[in-house]
Amino acid sequence: MLLDGIRGIVGEKETEDDCSVLDIGDRLLVMTTDMLHETTDFPKGMTDYEIGWMAAAVTLSDIASMAASPADLLMAVGLDDPARLPGITRGADACCRSVDARLAGGDIDRHDELTIVSTAIGFVDHEKILRRSGAQPGDLVCVTGMPGSAEAGLGGDLRYWKNLITPVPRVLEGKAFSEGGASAMMDISDGIALSLADLGRVSKVGFSLDPSLFPLIPDLPIERATDLFLFGGGDFELIATVPPDRFPVAGVDATVIGVVTEDTAILSGGSPLPHRGYLHRWE
Amino acid sequence: MLLDGIRGIVGEKETEDDCSVLDIGDRLLVMTTDMLHETTDFPKGMTDYEIGWMAAAVTLSDIASMAASPADLLMAVGLDDPARLPGITRGADACCRSVDARLAGGDIDRHDELTIVSTAIGFVDHEKILRRSGAQPGDLVCVTGMPGSAEAGLGGDLRYWKNLITPVPRVLEGKAFSEGGASAMMDISDGIALSLADLGRVSKVGFSLDPSLFPLIPDLPIERATDLFLFGGGDFELIATVPPDRFPVAGVDATVIGVVTEDTAILSGGSPLPHRGYLHRWE
Repeated sequence: MLLDGIRGIVGEKETEDDCSVLDIGDRLLVMTTDMLHETTDFPKGMTDYEIGWMAAAVTLSDIASMAASPADLLMAVGLDDPARLPGITRGADACCRSVDARLAGGDIDRHDELTIVSTAIGFVDHEKILRRSGAQPGDLVCVTGMPGSAEAGLGGDLRYWKNLITPVPRVLEGKAFSEGGASAMMDISDGIALSLADLGRVSKVGFSLDPSLFPLIPDLPIERATDLFLFGGGDFELIATVPPDRFPVAGVDATVIGVVTEDTAILSGGSPLPHRGYLHRWE
Repeated sequence: MLLDGIRGIVGEKETEDDCSVLDIGDRLLVMTTDMLHETTDFPKGMTDYEIGWMAAAVTLSDIASMAASPADLLMAVGLDDPARLPGITRGADACCRSVDARLAGGDIDRHDELTIVSTAIGFVDHEKILRRSGAQPGDLVCVTGMPGSAEAGLGGDLRYWKNLITPVPRVLEGKAFSEGGASAMMDISDGIALSLADLGRVSKVGFSLDPSLFPLIPDLPIERATDLFLFGGGDFELIATVPPDRFPVAGVDATVIGVVTEDTAILSGGSPLPHRGYLHRWE
């Protein structure tokens, strides 16, 4: 676990959530950065516009996952070909505008391999922030969208290609979860299984999922659809825990897939959930 | 000029300064990002600690150049070898601490070539920010430190190796220039000639430099020392314009090297200054 090696330097609490958090007095400022590069992060067939969109979306999704409103985004682009910059910039700008954020600047460099780092900030009131900590036994586990779609798109299912390449950051849903009393939240970009492992570790709880509740991709064998749902990566949907008396949450089309448990195991249909998913980082 | 191609998307004003600027009510938030990679930005012989320090310093210098106080810094690291991460992180953390900033998190990725993007935010009062615009004819042109040192260090002058690899962001000096009434400011990481060209373009002024005033590196032929001073890159010093009646500026050990002129030419000893320096970007 590479991250463990630097937790002692950066701080345990600082590496716990999708964003860093800074108290600026009247509000909290959240901030996050993500590095993407061509060979591992951008599926073949994407246009430069879509690459720019995706590079912005991954950080805006982190902002959304803390129930914050994104503000500014900077993009550092290491270009293998300068002709790609306008398309990438237009895509990033469009993604920012879709959530009322601003592409505020960046840096340009040459690189053998197209490499994009987007960094975004957002703001949230002290009492409105949602973190990975805070999930309580008995809370409902809720997800937005249809997790697994992006991985299906990557696998060639053209119905879900757009989910993969131009994900829409769930900013409105993140804020609605907070307004509606959710206890903890994160995004599921690495897949539900890995996300729940992170959420459970930080909240010191476990989960019991009910596969009959999963919003599965239609027209697939159920084993395949369930596998995509639990372990597929690249969906920038949200997973939140919500006290039962606060569900449904106004403004979010969310599906309950299980409950938070005191026991720290993660079960699906009563069986332990394997710890695997979309791990594109050294961790 | 690649940057011209995206100015229409990001905005002319947004690409004018070292940082983006966001009005957050009681203060301004400034934000900047820089991509560095091994083959072009880190001189051979640097330790991982020094690489981490430098990666943080380049963005903190941009914050300093707007007279802001740095707050948080995030670092995205694309690693060719995971064993390098702790050293890089310790160096970045130390640089942040040296200016009362916080290394608040980041992202880790694999990369064929070590690639680091640091992104920093800072805060400054509305009336205290300094920009590239604002220089007035008659103002004095002032620089901190001994520009050319970093390039001399790169060329093998061991006296200045430290200037090259562990530059100290001029945060205190930046704030002192603002308190002292400077009219415009930027850092000189691309060299004085290119920096003055940027400053002059945005402020719509020119400069007349007096070579007899240059704080040159000692014990070098004067032509070589002057060349390093004007065109050497990698120094994270500040250049500021100061009304004559506000000089000297308390808290800054600055050297006057010329004056701001209404004519937009840039002259040194009466001759036009060539437009060259440390251009490591596609512009």
